Amino acid sequence: MERVTEIKAREKLAVAAIRSMVIDVTNNANSGHPGMALDATPALYALYRDHLVADPEHPYWINRDRFVLSAGHCSALLYSMLHVAGYKISIEDLHSFRQVGSKTPGHPEFGMTEGVDATSGPLGQGIAQAVGMAIAEKNISATYPDGAKVMNHYTYCLCGDGCLQEGVSQEAISLAGHLRLNKLILIYDENGATLDGPTSDSFTENVKLRFMASEWNVIEVKDGDSVDAVSKAIEKAKKSICFPTLILMHTTIGIGSKHAGDHVTHGAPLGKEDGEFAKKSYGYDYPEFTIPAEVYEEMRNTFAARGKKAYAAYEDALSEYESFHPDEFKRLVDAFDRNVEKYLPERVEYSKDYKKATRITSGEYITRMVNSIPFTLGGSADVAGSTKTSVKGVAMFSAEHPEGRDMHYGIREFEMASAMNGELLHGGLVSYAAAFLIFSDYLKPAIRMSALEHLPAIYIFTHDTIALGEDGPTHQPIEQLAMLRSIPGNVVWRPADPKEVEAAYEFALMRKDGPTCLVLTRQSVPTLDNTDVDKAKFGAYKVFTPNGPAIGQVIATGSEVSLAIDSARILESRGIFVEVVSMPSMELFRKQDKEYRNSILHFPYSKRISLEMLSTFGWGEFAGHCIGIDRFGESGKGNEVMEQLGFSVDDVALKIAGALKGE
Amino acid sequence: MERVTEIKAREKLAVAAIRSMVIDVTNNANSGHPGMALDATPALYALYRDHLVADPEHPYWINRDRFVLSAGHCSALLYSMLHVAGYKISIEDLHSFRQVGSKTPGHPEFGMTEGVDATSGPLGQGIAQAVGMAIAEKNISATYPDGAKVMNHYTYCLCGDGCLQEGVSQEAISLAGHLRLNKLILIYDENGATLDGPTSDSFTENVKLRFMASEWNVIEVKDGDSVDAVSKAIEKAKKSICFPTLILMHTTIGIGSKHAGDHVTHGAPLGKEDGEFAKKSYGYDYPEFTIPAEVYEEMRNTFAARGKKAYAAYEDALSEYESFHPDEFKRLVDAFDRNVEKYLPERVEYSKDYKKATRITSGEYITRMVNSIPFTLGGSADVAGSTKTSVKGVAMFSAEHPEGRDMHYGIREFEMASAMNGELLHGGLVSYAAAFLIFSDYLKPAIRMSALEHLPAIYIFTHDTIALGEDGPTHQPIEQLAMLRSIPGNVVWRPADPKEVEAAYEFALMRKDGPTCLVLTRQSVPTLDNTDVDKAKFGAYKVFTPNGPAIGQVIATGSEVSLAIDSARILESRGIFVEVVSMPSMELFRKQDKEYRNSILHFPYSKRISLEMLSTFGWGEFAGHCIGIDRFGESGKGNEVMEQLGFSVDDVALKIAGALKGE
Repeated sequence: MERVTEIKAREKLAVAAIRSMVIDVTNNANSGHPGMALDATPALYALYRDHLVADPEHPYWINRDRFVLSAGHCSALLYSMLHVAGYKISIEDLHSFRQVGSKTPGHPEFGMTEGVDATSGPLGQGIAQAVGMAIAEKNISATYPDGAKVMNHYTYCLCGDGCLQEGVSQEAISLAGHLRLNKLILIYDENGATLDGPTSDSFTENVKLRFMASEWNVIEVKDGDSVDAVSKAIEKAKKSICFPTLILMHTTIGIGSKHAGDHVTHGAPLGKEDGEFAKKSYGYDYPEFTIPAEVYEEMRNTFAARGKKAYAAYEDALSEYESFHPDEFKRLVDAFDRNVEKYLPERVEYSKDYKKATRITSGEYITRMVNSIPFTLGGSADVAGSTKTSVKGVAMFSAEHPEGRDMHYGIREFEMASAMNGELLHGGLVSYAAAFLIFSDYLKPAIRMSALEHLPAIYIFTHDTIALGEDGPTHQPIEQLAMLRSIPGNVVWRPADPKEVEAAYEFALMRKDGPTCLVLTRQSVPTLDNTDVDKAKFGAYKVFTPNGPAIGQVIATGSEVSLAIDSARILESRGIFVEVVSMPSMELFRKQDKEYRNSILHFPYSKRISLEMLSTFGWGEFAGHCIGIDRFGESGKGNEVMEQLGFSVDDVALKIAGALKGE
Repeated sequence: MERVTEIKAREKLAVAAIRSMVIDVTNNANSGHPGMALDATPALYALYRDHLVADPEHPYWINRDRFVLSAGHCSALLYSMLHVAGYKISIEDLHSFRQVGSKTPGHPEFGMTEGVDATSGPLGQGIAQAVGMAIAEKNISATYPDGAKVMNHYTYCLCGDGCLQEGVSQEAISLAGHLRLNKLILIYDENGATLDGPTSDSFTENVKLRFMASEWNVIEVKDGDSVDAVSKAIEKAKKSICFPTLILMHTTIGIGSKHAGDHVTHGAPLGKEDGEFAKKSYGYDYPEFTIPAEVYEEMRNTFAARGKKAYAAYEDALSEYESFHPDEFKRLVDAFDRNVEKYLPERVEYSKDYKKATRITSGEYITRMVNSIPFTLGGSADVAGSTKTSVKGVAMFSAEHPEGRDMHYGIREFEMASAMNGELLHGGLVSYAAAFLIFSDYLKPAIRMSALEHLPAIYIFTHDTIALGEDGPTHQPIEQLAMLRSIPGNVVWRPADPKEVEAAYEFALMRKDGPTCLVLTRQSVPTLDNTDVDKAKFGAYKVFTPNGPAIGQVIATGSEVSLAIDSARILESRGIFVEVVSMPSMELFRKQDKEYRNSILHFPYSKRISLEMLSTFGWGEFAGHCIGIDRFGESGKGNEVMEQLGFSVDDVALKIAGALKGE
């Protein structure tokens, strides 16, 4: 009984200390979101003290439990918790919360701060990524012999109302339930307030029922302010052998503050007066930015000790694993280090007769890739048949076949991409995801996240122009390629033929620090004479030199490279000589030195003409004249739509000639 | 009894005829999606024959029931139905299904085909728009005296699994339930197959429970092949006085075909042999592309007669309404004709001391606009406090206050934008929607839809650069402006000061044929000397001429215009003379004649420098040198982040000088 009283007292002190730190941190920065951070403190404390298995000494330990703060605006709580838990966040770091150059930015950023397992803040994407982590855990555990010895952890996530209102959360919840991700535990902090007012102004759904509809366990915690109650709920959730679990926890926003329960505490620091009022209500009487020694001590004895022990045990188990399964051990290490080079499929020679859509060549590459890299996991958003991502003999990843490596994400593009991000944050997999280029619109926020998190995501976008035909303007991409190219850190490839497809995949697989988008045709393209796997990686290079003194050059990508060459040949027969440059990747070309760039784009600006059956937006950087499509498409047969919009070989030749005359 | 038998026989013939037409139409085009079109035929027939109130003679009648085919790939069914129902779709039009220049494109397009109430195809957005239509109906009905006399109709929507897997559908469902849109009726065709395989491969949720969680009525129809069963369900749904209704209808994909129940019928035409097999199974023995006279007759006697009568009654009611409420009648006409000009707020003079964030000026304009235009409806995605969309004294639109004109869309950006599209498709409202610029990523597919549908949507995007500060890279837009500018038909404004804000709103309100995006600052900007409301509408104009012979020009937008002028003044003091051009809208500038364009951008390409604290992507069209940010931002105080990334006045002056020297 005394023991219980003692624990309760320590617990109360710890929660008060962390809450007070949240108040100090946000007050000091005069910025940040204390409201939910305060009410979620007991839950996070319960998670770290009693459950989370992770080791601050080895923050990227591959078998640690993952924790994603989907409500990224509560970063002050996460940083305070990580500080208390022994991660490398000092009091000084907390002092410089939300300041330039600090490791405590406004929203958690993966790779910047040890203990932060995901970038979060754009609402919904935390949950969406956590689902990917749980997929990775399940898949890795199932694909290695005795896999539970190398991979066996939980994925936790904390969210608020905002995340659940965003559509992507439903895609994530639905997929997680379908896939029976039983080791995924989501804590929903139901505090009744959003930025603009009480949640009930815009959100009155029965969340419990909604999760049950998606085949989740639901545990309701009436008093989210009780560390004990939340801890017991997590304990119960961990025992799930089939379904993911939602812990629906009722709390009071800004608890302790004069405005407790009011949405005004959501977005603004409490300020000095209310901050002191709140600390008093917690019974906390320490100077600012102070954590009592016994609070640190408690976390050392619980969280840190548990993590240290688990890490050591894992190291032992891994040594043993190495001796029993040396090959698989090496594979595991390679997978987590993304040592892809030695698994790369051998290059294929393409004969001149090879004439296929680049999506078909891509499908062939995927088959070779999946067969030669044993740790791939990828698929599509219900367009495997069209994007050619399925590989013969490879099982669909499912509850029954967690060793399956073919992902059926369903018609959920955004979650597909976010799950891929989660898989890559988790590590141990080469992931890829496919959709029609037009639906890059639906998952764009996740590509940005891949880039922010420096994840080597591989996006495969097929059906890349109006040439896709009958599906018409709703399905014909125009501005999507420009959108992809504008994302910082994203590398976009639009290969002209099978050799450039090969180059694109090699690049994407070898990349370690950011996403790559492959943009592919629905229709067949010829294998070109002068394309080259290695040269393509420079981003742009010459592929056609006319039989006469060139007066300009056409810069084309993808299916338009052969169109440009055909047009240049027609012009050649009329005594107008133009070069053709293939530019499969603007981003890679920009990275070349000035000498190379000038050697490729060696004509004056006004004599450079871009050719792409997509928006001309962005081409002004390279070409003084742009041939493209700055309107929506048309429903009709692919070649007829091309004709209609001025992309017959003859029309293009005329346009090029006109542009060179300065028309 | 005889009567019943007779009805059944006619019904069977009609369903068989429409199904056979779907087979012929898709076979003839060798394209299209017959699977769900076949199984959903009885439901659509039940809707048109027994319920839908619309008049083919007046296809845009404002009080018609709306019907949205969210599963837009089933367009062959919709066109066949509209043909039978007496809309202007001929057999020839059905012959040219999915051909260039036809009015029967691959996916339904609003404005192209009479009887098509919405563009659909991008999955989920049909439902999402239907919710907006139901909002419009409820709001208009409530804001006019005796409003039920002018506005009183149902909104129907038909969807498949794909729509329900997309996240935006959950946002829509959740909002519709919350708002108690009782006149919204969604028919979900549960046919057990998606493009890639059985639905159960990726979707196993309990849809009934999910809708119940969002406060919908759910009516299950076990035999979706029964016209009678579906019709009775719709009858029941129409009686709902509180909640929206889901009719969950079980069907067999590709019914009648040899592959009935198999997902292979989803995407590909049946072909001749299987087509004939299917027709036989329907007991249908007519030549191709033939509808028996009695089928037309039945629709004339039911659907068309009902519609004609309802239209006439409405005309009478409206005449009476005009005499009782002449002012409101005029307002109604103006609202549906979007005669906004006479309601435009008067212009305001801004003194030189006026120094506010453009989002604040925007908020002031919104207040004037809402007070002077009596038919606005707008709001934000839970950021009203930050985007300044709420107007004092204007009630929140809700189940209790359907006359409220302040929308609280919740943290559902995509649905907010789609609902706005639905409101505008419906007509009778000036709608606007606000979010942070970074979250334009989440709703981008809906902006594209606004542009495709030629809707005068008004998007208000605030917090437009890294200057937003502490929220950091997850919240600081970089590439979003380029994304918006790349959408065909979209007009983007980034106003420099209050006068340009005024210009942007006047433009957006007066526009009738496409969306406008207003991109606004979080931080204060000065009122500039040479900005001008009218000149701004040319897209670009000179705002600073130096005291000496200019050697180049800086083209800036938004908050960077004053930065450019300040930098130019510093350079002036050093004897380097540069002009400054404000370019609030690239799109409007492109529309000016060559003479005007050359008079503004009159320096050689290499002497034009763009300045925008966002991605430089797209600026190459106008400027030979671009100053911008092609990386992600930083968390810190706004001015410190600006400093850090090289946007102090001094740094910018140095960069301009360097660029002019060709560095």
